Amino acid sequence: MDDETLNQRRQQPKTAANDEKSESWAQLAWTHLECVRNSSSPPLIQCITNLVSMDLVANVLLSAGASPAMIHSIEEIPEFTPKVHALYINVGTLTLAWLPAMKKAAAVANESKRPWVLDPVAAGASAFRLKACLELLTLGPTVVRGNGSEILVLFNGSANANFKGADSMHESTDAIEAAKSLARTYGCIVAVSGAVDIVTDGERVVGAKNGVPMLQKITATGCAVTALIAAFVAVTPSQPFEATAAALSVFGIAGELGMCSAGGPGSLRMHLIDALHSLDRTAVLQRANIANVS
Amino acid sequence: MDDETLNQRRQQPKTAANDEKSESWAQLAWTHLECVRNSSSPPLIQCITNLVSMDLVANVLLSAGASPAMIHSIEEIPEFTPKVHALYINVGTLTLAWLPAMKKAAAVANESKRPWVLDPVAAGASAFRLKACLELLTLGPTVVRGNGSEILVLFNGSANANFKGADSMHESTDAIEAAKSLARTYGCIVAVSGAVDIVTDGERVVGAKNGVPMLQKITATGCAVTALIAAFVAVTPSQPFEATAAALSVFGIAGELGMCSAGGPGSLRMHLIDALHSLDRTAVLQRANIANVS
Amino acid sequence: MDDETLNQRRQQPKTAANDEKSESWAQLAWTHLECVRNSSSPPLIQCITNLVSMDLVANVLLSAGASPAMIHSIEEIPEFTPKVHALYINVGTLTLAWLPAMKKAAAVANESKRPWVLDPVAAGASAFRLKACLELLTLGPTVVRGNGSEILVLFNGSANANFKGADSMHESTDAIEAAKSLARTYGCIVAVSGAVDIVTDGERVVGAKNGVPMLQKITATGCAVTALIAAFVAVTPSQPFEATAAALSVFGIAGELGMCSAGGPGSLRMHLIDALHSLDRTAVLQRANIANVS
Repeated sequence: MDDETLNQRRQQPKTAANDEKSESWAQLAWTHLECVRNSSSPPLIQCITNLVSMDLVANVLLSAGASPAMIHSIEEIPEFTPKVHALYINVGTLTLAWLPAMKKAAAVANESKRPWVLDPVAAGASAFRLKACLELLTLGPTVVRGNGSEILVLFNGSANANFKGADSMHESTDAIEAAKSLARTYGCIVAVSGAVDIVTDGERVVGAKNGVPMLQKITATGCAVTALIAAFVAVTPSQPFEATAAALSVFGIAGELGMCSAGGPGSLRMHLIDALHSLDRTAVLQRANIANVS
Repeated sequence: MDDETLNQRRQQPKTAANDEKSESWAQLAWTHLECVRNSSSPPLIQCITNLVSMDLVANVLLSAGASPAMIHSIEEIPEFTPKVHALYINVGTLTLAWLPAMKKAAAVANESKRPWVLDPVAAGASAFRLKACLELLTLGPTVVRGNGSEILVLFNGSANANFKGADSMHESTDAIEAAKSLARTYGCIVAVSGAVDIVTDGERVVGAKNGVPMLQKITATGCAVTALIAAFVAVTPSQPFEATAAALSVFGIAGELGMCSAGGPGSLRMHLIDALHSLDRTAVLQRANIANVS
Repeated sequence: MDDETLNQRRQQPKTAANDEKSESWAQLAWTHLECVRNSSSPPLIQCITNLVSMDLVANVLLSAGASPAMIHSIEEIPEFTPKVHALYINVGTLTLAWLPAMKKAAAVANESKRPWVLDPVAAGASAFRLKACLELLTLGPTVVRGNGSEILVLFNGSANANFKGADSMHESTDAIEAAKSLARTYGCIVAVSGAVDIVTDGERVVGAKNGVPMLQKITATGCAVTALIAAFVAVTPSQPFEATAAALSVFGIAGELGMCSAGGPGSLRMHLIDALHSLDRTAVLQRANIANVS
């Protein structure tokens, strides 16, 4: 595990990633998955996530080769969070009671130079929730992943009266400028899920076009892919931009392969997990579809 | 979304539903499902439900074409609940900490003229739980759905020393008179699940005979069908009696179709979701088995 | 349901189980499963378990023929816990808010002479968690089941700085002496899961070698098998040693049979439940692999 400081990580020179071919991205996607699977000890991912997503999040992490730890008690965070390889915070079923633990865990992760990833589920559902998401943002997550509506709400900084729950009302591509701005403001990677998954560090923008529409008919797939981002960032903390794009692509590929055997959202959920577990190099290299967004 | 007041809804003249043929009911069942699927925006269903049921409830709603929102924080309710199309409250893992949010959400739903549905899981397990269920009842749910034991406990108004958890010790048909009385007292629709699912508005009584016994071997199927009732009531808030019978029948049909491919409760859970997602008009018209109960 | 006191249960003469042949153990395993299935009323198992495991725990209990009740509110425990046949406490997502209910439920179970089972998930993750587990241990569980790391941490009585979450870093066989010592100190059965599942009452030690490695790639399988132990102990409270070994073997056999149809951890989770539901005498007698550990 890389122990360089957050600052170092964020100040590293941008490499010429914009010139990288899609093949290199496919190779990167595979390498990240391989790293998670072949770590001397599985990357330990602390998940403070919503109540709906816990089963899927844990099973996706296990299938990818990581080790989930659903520990959210504030009493345990000072002692436990420094031991993990990455932290995942998801506000899906946020309450006043859980928020202090989220903030504390983010702070401890920062002190311990552990990467952490934020999923601002339904950020626009209420002023309370938006405020919490913005407070977490100021704590400096390594990566933020949301759908188009969530990223736009964070960018605008005001709850949306038209907001309709956890499902997006916007295309991910509608939120590219908002994502770039957020990435620059908070010094983090921002990912926007959608038909094309957008990833930006504020300068570079790539799009990952893997996955199938039916994934949106399964609860917590967004939460689960954010957890996978955390696992990928855990093994390459100096490359959060690459790790994020790789995780989005790999999850999407597992969805595509799962879809081959699925008869609906129920069986897709199962085959997605199986496919992620058995994903091989050939499938990743053939299917990874990550490219620069002009 | 219909904006008529609760009062208007409850005072509407009873139509001659008792004379309707089973074929009309089958058509009604199909129409309700189609409405959920084809809404300009998917009906948004706020679920304050128990911790065991969240995954299945959300996936059943998504498979039916609705959009679940598991938002239970009291801080968010005044702002969020008015935006939803229906509210679902389920007391399965009730605690003192969750009860105020349930009551607040019910009150806000009433003020906003949103239908809401109550699942009084294990109502007789303790005096604390029964009291909570009765308090929620007085707030005027649009629909209450329980099993025979739960409806009898609500009717008797006293916790049952013999109560054995969430599984029913009574046939649904044992609770018809209790259901009718509750419906009249609280001005709501009451549904009693069982081999025959009973639905009454206090005067009319219909029975839906879809489903398979193995559904009882899957946790939270009762919770899930109540969520589906909320989705159906969301699209036809002026017809909660019809919507409730339709949801019970449609869920049961999905169970019947799922059972064709199932090797046990684990696979039935999956095939149920797939079947609900792909359910077509022919299957609903052929299988819906809703009839008046004399 | 046997109403003998805890003391009586613990003071009963140790039978010559060490001399029992594996065939007798296989018969015992089958008999326990049959008892759960054929009880006049399904054994009611109160589960105060972690948020990740609730769905799998409830579905495993239902598939085995038991009736789960996820009631964790301290307000309900004095009234509800005396009605159950066994209590299951699992600290996986422990918080300060949940701990009093766990202790209260254990105390009420003791007063009501109900067996109760403890799963000390990630006992070494923090001093807070370890203290809670040790406090629960002093309340006298009938059975404790953990992995090698958890049992060693309980034995050593100090949080492990190297502890890596819920996944074990030790073989179960590394923890045999620790398990025996804990069993003697606390007067309980101790089970250690692993490639061989170890069960001891402090004197006798048996090993159950059923199951498949992929079960570790599914979240909450450890929690689920502990719940099954609770169901088996519920029907034979005077034989917690035998019930524990039987439950571990039966769950492992269901995993083996499920593995025949599984394409990965997602489908194994489903087939495991199906296999547990349809497990027959022949399969149990042929596959149960329980033997004395010298």
